Amino acid sequence: MQVYHLYSGGKDSSLSAWILERMGYSVELVTVNFGILDSWKYAKETAEKLGFRHRVLYLSQDIIEKAAEIAIKDGHPNNAIQFIHERALEALASLPEVERVSDGTRRDDRVPLLDLPKSRSLEDRFNVAYIRPLLGLGYKTIRELTERLFVVEIRESEQLEKADYEVELRHLLREEGIDLLTIFPKSHYQSRVVGWRGEGRYD
Amino acid sequence: MQVYHLYSGGKDSSLSAWILERMGYSVELVTVNFGILDSWKYAKETAEKLGFRHRVLYLSQDIIEKAAEIAIKDGHPNNAIQFIHERALEALASLPEVERVSDGTRRDDRVPLLDLPKSRSLEDRFNVAYIRPLLGLGYKTIRELTERLFVVEIRESEQLEKADYEVELRHLLREEGIDLLTIFPKSHYQSRVVGWRGEGRYD
Repeated sequence: MQVYHLYSGGKDSSLSAWILERMGYSVELVTVNFGILDSWKYAKETAEKLGFRHRVLYLSQDIIEKAAEIAIKDGHPNNAIQFIHERALEALASLPEVERVSDGTRRDDRVPLLDLPKSRSLEDRFNVAYIRPLLGLGYKTIRELTERLFVVEIRESEQLEKADYEVELRHLLREEGIDLLTIFPKSHYQSRVVGWRGEGRYD
Repeated sequence: MQVYHLYSGGKDSSLSAWILERMGYSVELVTVNFGILDSWKYAKETAEKLGFRHRVLYLSQDIIEKAAEIAIKDGHPNNAIQFIHERALEALASLPEVERVSDGTRRDDRVPLLDLPKSRSLEDRFNVAYIRPLLGLGYKTIRELTERLFVVEIRESEQLEKADYEVELRHLLREEGIDLLTIFPKSHYQSRVVGWRGEGRYD
């Protein structure tokens, strides 16, 4: 049972990859990149530390340019992030070898998050199963599991070497001369998993 | 990490118990009963076959009587089942030793299912974590995992020795002289797990 799991190197996508593996899936981590920065390498680094297979899925720059437009129009990044995530799931689900896609989206997330009709539509259009191991977990549960499993580094978004959609989106907006403070909250702490805690993946 | 898991002996609650165990939880299965029938014993039997600890949680008959009223008024059982499930979660969450409650509700269920505000309210009112391992899984995924893990018996509701809320609700309604066909769909297949497939729980 092979599953392709959208992966940023963060806590949520790492925790859900671990749960998938514990459920008996053969997990391949997939980091989306638009060819603007090589930020995917931070996710690859974490994937290797955790012992998962990893690949990069390059998406068209049209998508991140459209996302940048959305973020500028809205004055906040939520709909832009949601837009990128939906396109990333579709691109992954459309690969011929892919029968199961997954991600680390969670119950308490506002974005990115597919509602029930969108989830079923993804499954039906691409004939895949869409699996979200964290959807039924609240923040207490996720915090408890994450603390038990991972060594995590927490810094402000701008300082952390990360591989999520926001990294390239920020870069593109900055290139376009946009003041990031008009779109992103000022102090937004982000996390990155740097390894297993204690005895490792089967701790 | 001890979790108390609402358990009927069916596929969904068995699959979610297995996932919880794989996630590192110490799982105790809990079957709700109203003292009308000893239907809890079928869940206990399955729990023992699967190797999980099991207890019965007796709830007030007022709850199932209220549920019967709801079902009669509605002409269908959905709101009645939802009502019982919410009371069952509250009763379990209110026990002093309970810090984590869980159930086998799934993405594609209409009832019973707590929406986001109700889930957070349960967690906040009783200071527990509420964990739903199947919430992020669609029917394809659940079918695939269930077929891989369990030997399942499928029969019509009326013939199957089960331990879910419906068994006592049907009995109570029948006792009250209600024609069950005015409330429940005629042919409603139900499933019951009877054991592990193949090499068992760590297959």
